[in-house]
Amino acid sequence: MPRLTEATAAKRRMHILQAAAHCLFERGLLATSVDDVCAQAGISKGAFYSHFPSREALIHAVTDMLSAELGPVDDSSIAALADSVFERQIAPALPPANARFGIEITAASAGDLGLRERNTANLERLRMAIEAAVRSLVAAGKARPDADAEAVGWLAQAHVMGVLCRNAVWPAQDEAALRRATHLLFESLLAPV
Amino acid sequence: MPRLTEATAAKRRMHILQAAAHCLFERGLLATSVDDVCAQAGISKGAFYSHFPSREALIHAVTDMLSAELGPVDDSSIAALADSVFERQIAPALPPANARFGIEITAASAGDLGLRERNTANLERLRMAIEAAVRSLVAAGKARPDADAEAVGWLAQAHVMGVLCRNAVWPAQDEAALRRATHLLFESLLAPV
Repeated sequence: MPRLTEATAAKRRMHILQAAAHCLFERGLLATSVDDVCAQAGISKGAFYSHFPSREALIHAVTDMLSAELGPVDDSSIAALADSVFERQIAPALPPANARFGIEITAASAGDLGLRERNTANLERLRMAIEAAVRSLVAAGKARPDADAEAVGWLAQAHVMGVLCRNAVWPAQDEAALRRATHLLFESLLAPV
Repeated sequence: MPRLTEATAAKRRMHILQAAAHCLFERGLLATSVDDVCAQAGISKGAFYSHFPSREALIHAVTDMLSAELGPVDDSSIAALADSVFERQIAPALPPANARFGIEITAASAGDLGLRERNTANLERLRMAIEAAVRSLVAAGKARPDADAEAVGWLAQAHVMGVLCRNAVWPAQDEAALRRATHLLFESLLAPV
């Protein structure tokens, strides 16, 4: 096989990651094999293993790809903070298959150190971003002065994970009602009294 | 084999359920086989199958046993409501092995209708109990009159599930900090302004 240029290799790697995400959302974590991913991507097993050393490495890379899509939070107002947490953390997990994959990753984290490190790093980034946004809102006089930024970070982190669990077990979530609930959470915790 | 009296059969069934819960917490859902449970309970496979038709039926029965241990919520005050949600729903899932089992059950609910029905029924019971407690607190003048009982039910349900996720991936949770966070959630949503 001729050596691939770096750009071609990166493109093929991304093609495999997207095929893997498709299989993982469609069938679930346990039911997805390297064979499934190769069939979905239209490649040979040899080609697969030239990009990823193992199924485990592939799952880690898919997790990295999905978490890279989550952006920063907006600290211009309480409503903007609530909206950005909803848009970037909750809305992407609204389709039940996506939510199920998130929960499967959480469950699998117990026995896979690489997954656990990724999972906790993502969740800690979210928590710390919210904590920083709350401190910035308080400093700007846009949130109650006694707001407990650390506790709000923990509560918002648990909120995002809890909504993910809901989405995984209940199909057809009411997106508008979920968005209102996220707003109510932040307004209750932060609105000046 | 002589027929067992009903009392003896119930006692043996409970012995198997407790052995199964031990294995499930110790090894996780996927790694626990009927053989493991028989070894832990000190019984033969024949004896096992005289009590449970399948591994699936056993997992369902363990789930029923664990959810029966969750009691009602206390609606005498906002703090009492927060305490009872913490004591009965969050504290039992503080040991990481217990939390991991909860998340594994949630993940497995996607592909097991019996588990999904149990999981959603438990979570809906919790949500409705909290909604009823909030209405009762409002009626008694102990919560803000404009409290959105339905939204508080959803938020508290997600909170319980989210904390479960946290406990599954982070060892050594700070119980006092978690309890304060649960109190802050209910106080923020319900305290009269």
